[in-house]
Formats: sequence, structure tokens, C-alpha cells
Amino acid sequence: MSHSALRINGQRLNSSLQSTCSSWGAITNSTGMRRLALSEEDRSVRDWLVRECKALGCRVKIDQMGNIFAIRDGASQDKLPIAMGSHLDTQPAGPRKISNTDWGIGGRYDGILGVQAALEVLRTLHENNIQTHCPVALIDWTNEEGARFPGAMMASGVWSTKSSTALEACHGIKDMEGTTMQKALEDTGYLGKTPCDYRENGLESYFELHIEQGPKLEATNNRVGVVTAVQGMKWYAMRVSGVEGHSGTTPMHQRSDALVTAARLIAAVSDTAQATSLGVATVGVITSDTQSQATIPSGVEFIIDIRCSTDAMVEDLCTAIFKRFDEIILNEKNNTSYSVLRTWGLPESIFHDDCISAVRSAAVAEVGPSKIMDMKSGAGHDAAWTSKVVRSSMIFVPSKDGISHNPAEYTTPEDCALGAQVLLQAVLRYDESIRNGINS
Amino acid sequence: MSHSALRINGQRLNSSLQSTCSSWGAITNSTGMRRLALSEEDRSVRDWLVRECKALGCRVKIDQMGNIFAIRDGASQDKLPIAMGSHLDTQPAGPRKISNTDWGIGGRYDGILGVQAALEVLRTLHENNIQTHCPVALIDWTNEEGARFPGAMMASGVWSTKSSTALEACHGIKDMEGTTMQKALEDTGYLGKTPCDYRENGLESYFELHIEQGPKLEATNNRVGVVTAVQGMKWYAMRVSGVEGHSGTTPMHQRSDALVTAARLIAAVSDTAQATSLGVATVGVITSDTQSQATIPSGVEFIIDIRCSTDAMVEDLCTAIFKRFDEIILNEKNNTSYSVLRTWGLPESIFHDDCISAVRSAAVAEVGPSKIMDMKSGAGHDAAWTSKVVRSSMIFVPSKDGISHNPAEYTTPEDCALGAQVLLQAVLRYDESIRNGINS
Repeated sequence: MSHSALRINGQRLNSSLQSTCSSWGAITNSTGMRRLALSEEDRSVRDWLVRECKALGCRVKIDQMGNIFAIRDGASQDKLPIAMGSHLDTQPAGPRKISNTDWGIGGRYDGILGVQAALEVLRTLHENNIQTHCPVALIDWTNEEGARFPGAMMASGVWSTKSSTALEACHGIKDMEGTTMQKALEDTGYLGKTPCDYRENGLESYFELHIEQGPKLEATNNRVGVVTAVQGMKWYAMRVSGVEGHSGTTPMHQRSDALVTAARLIAAVSDTAQATSLGVATVGVITSDTQSQATIPSGVEFIIDIRCSTDAMVEDLCTAIFKRFDEIILNEKNNTSYSVLRTWGLPESIFHDDCISAVRSAAVAEVGPSKIMDMKSGAGHDAAWTSKVVRSSMIFVPSKDGISHNPAEYTTPEDCALGAQVLLQAVLRYDESIRNGINS
Repeated sequence: MSHSALRINGQRLNSSLQSTCSSWGAITNSTGMRRLALSEEDRSVRDWLVRECKALGCRVKIDQMGNIFAIRDGASQDKLPIAMGSHLDTQPAGPRKISNTDWGIGGRYDGILGVQAALEVLRTLHENNIQTHCPVALIDWTNEEGARFPGAMMASGVWSTKSSTALEACHGIKDMEGTTMQKALEDTGYLGKTPCDYRENGLESYFELHIEQGPKLEATNNRVGVVTAVQGMKWYAMRVSGVEGHSGTTPMHQRSDALVTAARLIAAVSDTAQATSLGVATVGVITSDTQSQATIPSGVEFIIDIRCSTDAMVEDLCTAIFKRFDEIILNEKNNTSYSVLRTWGLPESIFHDDCISAVRSAAVAEVGPSKIMDMKSGAGHDAAWTSKVVRSSMIFVPSKDGISHNPAEYTTPEDCALGAQVLLQAVLRYDESIRNGINS
């Protein structure tokens, strides 16, 4: 059988995806998921994944951050694996004290589709006795959501970082109950010995299938997104400090109300992004020190999420926002102050032409040139990290109504299968080019 | 001994207050308190209070809201009790995920001083074998803070309300764990049979000693506040509704960001109160449906607390705030909406001249006319409710730096003793006037 005629089994893929979601992390009476990294549910689905991969004859390595590498050998003894991957953890259910929305609950496709599709590719190669030139690997990256241990794309970040301290720092990060990542890795049996370092456990290239999480493919009637880059991002954890006071006994002009100042800053984040047209800026998380309606808040914390097409635009938007903050604080008469508690960021990630070409030709072969589009990812992904150190690219399939991180997150079984088929063919085409010495 | 020479025992009062706080609800390494209504700590201090009052020969009645009435008989068989009271519950420790402040923790004086002082008055009457004309009662009102079961001054409100449904409604209110007030009353043994109704379990009058919780007495170098009224208050629980979205993939102009709109409304609450000079308005509580930094918030809820000297001013300030809200929503381009989920309120409470006079003359006798001042209370108190149906007034003593609902809440032992002494003499003066047929 010619490799280009090889087809994944869409029914098997979708059945595997849905049944494992139903078994491990499903929310009762909902298609929503709550599968926090290294939770009992995550441990169970990981154990299942390892069993499945071993049954296909793969070698399985667990690294120091719990990343699972399942490797199917190729003909060549000296090539690194062409990898496919994503993550099996999901968003949590957020605290919802008063309202009844389900927002903040994870869906069944974000991350999960990418790993399940990689498994389906391995199954297809195995049942057809395909011998690739390079090894082919499946990767499940730990804690991509950063929902349990703060810090999205954490473990792919450690693997891709030229830093001796990143691993140690991430092992020490605690969840809300105070459990460290290291303890959670130990407790689940996923604190592996393989170095979490691209230099010691390397890859030839990396392909990631993911749902778009936005409305563009659907709106333009395209079926596959050929992802060329991930936009640059920066986050700031902010604190506004005021002075506590009783709401009934403290005169307005004597107040130092942290929430009033925070409110002006939050409005300014949105206004500045709109006025400059540089990119998007969002405050998605806010917490107040007080939970008493009769108390003037003394401290409010919030996180600003800034994303633009290029790193320079990210810098310009950040500068404009903080300039506006300084003006607001100067004009405020309530004697509050603000500070930046912590910053994170992920520079703009430009994918590799060879990988992009493999995805594009695989997609064209499946649906023709009129149903695919090149696009940049607005969301961060593990591939954004891997692209810093190995050739990488991504495949997007449509998200119904552009919704994700929500039980309403949905991608049709046909699109899931299409994504897996494009993934298979992209890997095979890339492998073929290596065999022929085209990419090297 | 002439009644006017009678003196409370300040050392005993302060020792009783501090030791019971240390035993039931103290926070380790802090003077802060966490004694939520009908918690294990509250049950213990209530049991202690009942034992102490019975040891002084008082009859103890528990009503349907768990209010404790400890009654010391007087000479007259047909008079209702002159009551003294406040509450033994405190503010909770609020959730503090990131910051390290202690704000939101209760102190040792708010409410607690009023009940302890009432007990000290009973002890003083008992040890001096004083026979009053009217019975004298101590009252511990349940859930004044509204910190466990939402709704401040809840049980004094039920007692003072001409409504057959208030009791049932309050019994059904749930705490954060879903426990109803009725269940908590049953579990602690404080679901009494005495009707929680001023018409069936009435009082002759009501006096409440409380810390000021504001800076005025200290700033003016006065020692006693003669409280003539409690300002009018109104609360609105608000919800702003938008549409969820991914922070990286949703363009600014397509967003419906609930937090951005909420931020504009919160700033407007403060700005409107300052611009109109009608009173004070505060947003002390804010919650968002989402806890993900990568999510555009779809729902934000907050509580507005509005207080003015008169009910008419409260109405005017509310009208001005909501007019501004409508303008903001109209000008917003992000397609959000707001709704009022619930309102509460406590109309302006004007205390009774006879009770005010008794407090004033008792205070003048203790510290002279230059060390007392008439004042309105900015905070709500159980006396605000009782004043709707029986003659009532309050005594304020200084709060250090005006701080309360905080471990830094402090009133000197001397001022605590002074407050109790004024309470004793106000009750005796009022009793004397009843005996003499002056107040009737």
C-alpha cells in the first residue's frame, strides 16, 4: 500500500476519544470535562494511554515533568523521532458561588483531540505494518492548561528551555491545596527519570493537531487551518493596594479603595487595546482580599493577558497600557498604588517552513486547496514552545461557534477524523522528505 | 446604696471578654476572631453565656431564630424587660488565595463588647442585690454579621418585622456549604420555641453598647457617643452578563466582556457618590464566573452598599447611580447587560428621645458634658431594627484608628469599662423613670 493511500479509522478515533472522556473526568449530565493535571482522572487516562501505546509495540519514556513519550521505531537507527502530541489535561470547573453558568469547565477536544489523533496515527501505522524512516513518537505534555499548577504550557516549556533552574522551579509550584508538582508527579507515578530537556531527549520535528478555539475556519467555510505561527503573549499579575475601611463610617474623600482603582485600570486595559489596534488585552481573573459587602477593599489582584501578532507589538501595547495606568494613579485622589507581582510571557513563535509545507500538502490532498487557510494561532500551545528548539507546526480543525474551555466546545466527528488524517499524512510526508534527504 | 453610685467591675468585664474570645474563635497568633454564627465556636460561647446568666438567677428563653433572652425579674409583675444586647458572632476570615492580609477577619469588640457589658451589668445588679422596677434582659442576637448566612442583622430583623414569612425565609437561607439556618439552629440546640416576634416576646426598651467602628470619637477627643440614629442603607446585588470567549482568539470589537462593563459601573458608583455628596457608596464584594486568565469573563457579580443620613438621600443617590449605569450600558459597544439580582435595605432608624436622654445623662455623669457627643451610626446594628418597634438607643465608645472587622480592632479596657458603666446607669435611669411614671 502506498503511504499516501493510508487512512486513519475515524470511527475508532472518535470512539476512543469519547469513551476515555466519559470514563475519566466527565462532568455528570454535561459534555464538560474536569481533568486537572496529575489528578486521579489524569492518572487513569495516562495509565490507559501508556498501555495502549505499549500494546502497539512502542517504547514509553516518562520524563522529569511527567511528559509521556511513546516511540515507535523506524528503519533508521540514528534519527530522532518525528513527534505528534498535545495534552490530556483540561480546564477546571471554576468557583461559581452565585451564578449557574458552566464557563471555566473544560471541553472534550482542547488538547485531548491532539493526543487521541496521535494514538490513532500509531494504531494505523501498526495495523498496516508501516515502517517509517524516522521513529514516530506520541507525546502527552503535562499541565498544558496550567489550571491546577499555575503556568500554562508548563512541561513543554521546561523541555524547550535552556535553563537548569526551570525544572526545579516548576517542581516547586503548588496547587491551591498546597501540593507541589513534584509531589503530584510522585503520587501518580509520573516522576520519570528521562531528562526533561530537548538536548538530552530530542525530536526530529513536532506536529500538533488542535481545535482552532476561534471562529475563523467556520466563518470562512474552511476545513483545515495550516498554522504558521503563534502570536506573542505576555501576562502581568497585578495588585492594587488601598486601605481597609467600614463602608458605612468612612467618608468618600478619606477612602483608599483598591477596587475602585482596579476598576479604572481594568477599563483602561480594554480601552487601550481598542484605541491602539495593536492586539488583544484581557483581564480574565480578579480577586479581592475582602468578601464583606460592608468593607472597603484594601487589596485587589488581577491578571492582564496581552497578545499581538509580533513581539514588538506586544511590547508597544504593554507600554501603552502601563502609561495609561500611571496617568490613572496620578489622577486618582484615593491614595491607592499598584504593583506588578509577576510576569510571564511567550514570545511570538514562527513555525518551520518544512513542517508547514508537510501540513499544507497533506491538507490539500484531503480537502483541496479551496478548503484550507493559513492562520496564526491566538491561543498558546505546546507547539509554541517546541518550535523554539525543533522544527514544528500545527493543524487546526474548526471549533463550533469558536467556543472552547466550555462544555459547548465541539468539533464534529468528521473534522476530528480529518484532522487525524492530515496529521498522519503530514508525518508521513515529512518522514519521506527525511528519507529522501530533502529536509536535513 | 444609691443606684447612681453603682459601678460595674471593669476588670471582670475585660477578663471575661478576653478569655471567652481566646477560648472560642480566636485565630492563632492574632487578636483576630473567626466566630461564625452557629458555628462550633459560637455554640460554645452561647452555652457559656446561658450558664453564666442562669447562675445569676436569670430565666433564659431561646426564640425561633436562636436569639437568647436572659431575663432578671424586677419588682413589677406587669412590665416588659428593659433589654441590653448585641451579638457574639464575628466576621469570617475571607478567602485569601494570593495576598497575606488579615482583612475580613473579625475583631474582639464588634458585638462581643455589647453582650459582655450586658452580662457585667447583670452581674453587678446581682452581687449588689439590686431590685429594679422592670425586668432587665440580656439579648444575644443571632447572625448579626450575616457573614455565614447572608443578611446582616438577620435575627433582630425577624423579631422586629411585622411579617409571617420572614421567619420561614430566614430559616431557609443557606451558608456556603449548603447548610440551612434552620439546620444550624437544630444542630447547635438553639432552635427555640419562643416566638421570634416583638408582639409575643416584647421589650419595654432596648439599649446597645457598641464600638464606634469609625474615627470620630477619637478624632474629637470624646469618650462616649450618644447615638441618636442609624443612617439609611440599601444594598443591591448586581450581575453583569456578557459572552465567554478565548482571550487570544476573540477580536476586541467582537467581545462582550462582563468584567470591563462591571469595571465601568464600579468606578461610577464611587464617582457618583463623590459628585452628589449625598452619602457613601461602596462595592465591597466582586466575583467573576471565570477563574481562567485566558477567558473573557461572561458574568461578574458585585454588591453595592449605599448609605445616607436620610432615606430620601438614599433614594436620590440610588437613582443617580442607576441613571449613570444606564448611560454607561448605552455607550458601551460590547453588548453586555446588567441586572439587579436582589435588594436589601434598612431604612433610617431614629432612636427614641427617652432612651437617648437616659444614655446622655448616664454619660454626662461619668465623663462630664465635654467628653460626649451626639452622633449618627454609619454602620447597621441590631438596635436599628429594634428601634422600629420598641424604644431604643445606643452607646458608642471609641475605636482605635476607626478600625473594625480586622484584627487591629481595638478599644481600651478603660473605654470598655466606661461603656458598660454608662449602659448600667442608662438602664437604671430608664427603669427609675418607668417606676416614677415619667416614660410610659
